Amino acid sequence: MADSSDSGAYDFWYWPSIPGRGEFVRLTLEACGIPYRDRAREDGAEAMMKDMAGHVEGPAYAPPYIGIDGQTVSQTANILMFLSERHDCGPTTMKTRYWLNQVQLTIMDVVAEAHNVHHPVAAMLYYEDQKAEAARAAEQFRKERIPGYFAWFEKALKAAAGDWLTGSRWSYADLSLFQLVSGLRYAFPKRIKSIEGDYPRLMKLCDLVAAMPELKDYFRSNRRIAFNNDGIFRHYPELDAA
Amino acid sequence: MADSSDSGAYDFWYWPSIPGRGEFVRLTLEACGIPYRDRAREDGAEAMMKDMAGHVEGPAYAPPYIGIDGQTVSQTANILMFLSERHDCGPTTMKTRYWLNQVQLTIMDVVAEAHNVHHPVAAMLYYEDQKAEAARAAEQFRKERIPGYFAWFEKALKAAAGDWLTGSRWSYADLSLFQLVSGLRYAFPKRIKSIEGDYPRLMKLCDLVAAMPELKDYFRSNRRIAFNNDGIFRHYPELDAA
Repeated sequence: MADSSDSGAYDFWYWPSIPGRGEFVRLTLEACGIPYRDRAREDGAEAMMKDMAGHVEGPAYAPPYIGIDGQTVSQTANILMFLSERHDCGPTTMKTRYWLNQVQLTIMDVVAEAHNVHHPVAAMLYYEDQKAEAARAAEQFRKERIPGYFAWFEKALKAAAGDWLTGSRWSYADLSLFQLVSGLRYAFPKRIKSIEGDYPRLMKLCDLVAAMPELKDYFRSNRRIAFNNDGIFRHYPELDAA
Repeated sequence: MADSSDSGAYDFWYWPSIPGRGEFVRLTLEACGIPYRDRAREDGAEAMMKDMAGHVEGPAYAPPYIGIDGQTVSQTANILMFLSERHDCGPTTMKTRYWLNQVQLTIMDVVAEAHNVHHPVAAMLYYEDQKAEAARAAEQFRKERIPGYFAWFEKALKAAAGDWLTGSRWSYADLSLFQLVSGLRYAFPKRIKSIEGDYPRLMKLCDLVAAMPELKDYFRSNRRIAFNNDGIFRHYPELDAA
């Protein structure tokens, strides 16, 4: 598969004003030193909708996606597995490949649930039109779901022979775990503060990613988009509690 | 990776009384002729919870999963990609592998949304405790989401050089599309009947899977679990409409 652009850089597309699912892909592109153009940030969301509609073979249902070879690679976990395999960035044995994909898909399940908290009735309605339902959803998410998922991540890290999910070397799924916890901390600061002590390995992993030399420049750059209340992780104080 | 059981058959685990996400895996195991033991149907759900808790390395967050080599392969799309690669069952080029995974992950998104329709507030509460919210969620799902996804599947099939997603040969994602449409037809019979004419390629694909010689015995057997209202696809007449 050849890159679609003359420069050899990937055409990466995602909503330009939120970190959302796109940020999971950006972290891996940046940490692995893979050249890319953040096309919707260059050309706008309308250009993205036009590009997406124009794909006949192998279309994307939704961003994020990479345009390559006349078709798309979309779905966050799929993009990450593809990049990791194609660029030999991270563990490559069959066992580790499917283990990382398993973790990544579980991370994406939490991402979807985090979005459902403020949009339980319908993604296409405003939060303001489903606030009562969101308050009920948030309570379950804070009390049951976050601890359940965090306990599973902690268990997975405890069995690893090192600080990372597959042992001694970081992978895209480690970067994604960092981004997930960061997003939850933005959305539910009181809740995360009250439980983080129960998950020392998970929290250490987050600290390690935050300090990665491969990401130092990126974190300081304007390529990194801050969490905000148009995205997946939103801070509505009324939905948070210790 | 060696099979964990002496017989060479996979240990497959999923809730024993519903088709749910497990059925996507069963269809591929059966159509590809891969030996497996449906462990929770043999030994019960309690045995599954015990087995799942016992996995230290590479644990599963939730069923379905395959126990193999002392760890698990879980997450439906991950299991299917793993089986397809390991058993050379379906297209194997890098391009087709990631395309099928992209489609499968989009199918799993619809599955999750179909469950959210009757459990919009929390998966851990009863439907009866969130009926009002479910009625609102169902309207959006019927009117906007199903047609949006179906249009995308139809577009993908239109670009394929044949009746299947990758052309002339079925893959696990084709089997999954059949199962998805079957589930939606069970849950929303009025709605599917009123729109199915708009998606002739998708409906033809479902007919082709239903008639596959590789699945003939399976469909007649008691290994195939019927849709029911304990599962992901549930028929609540009050949530359906043309």
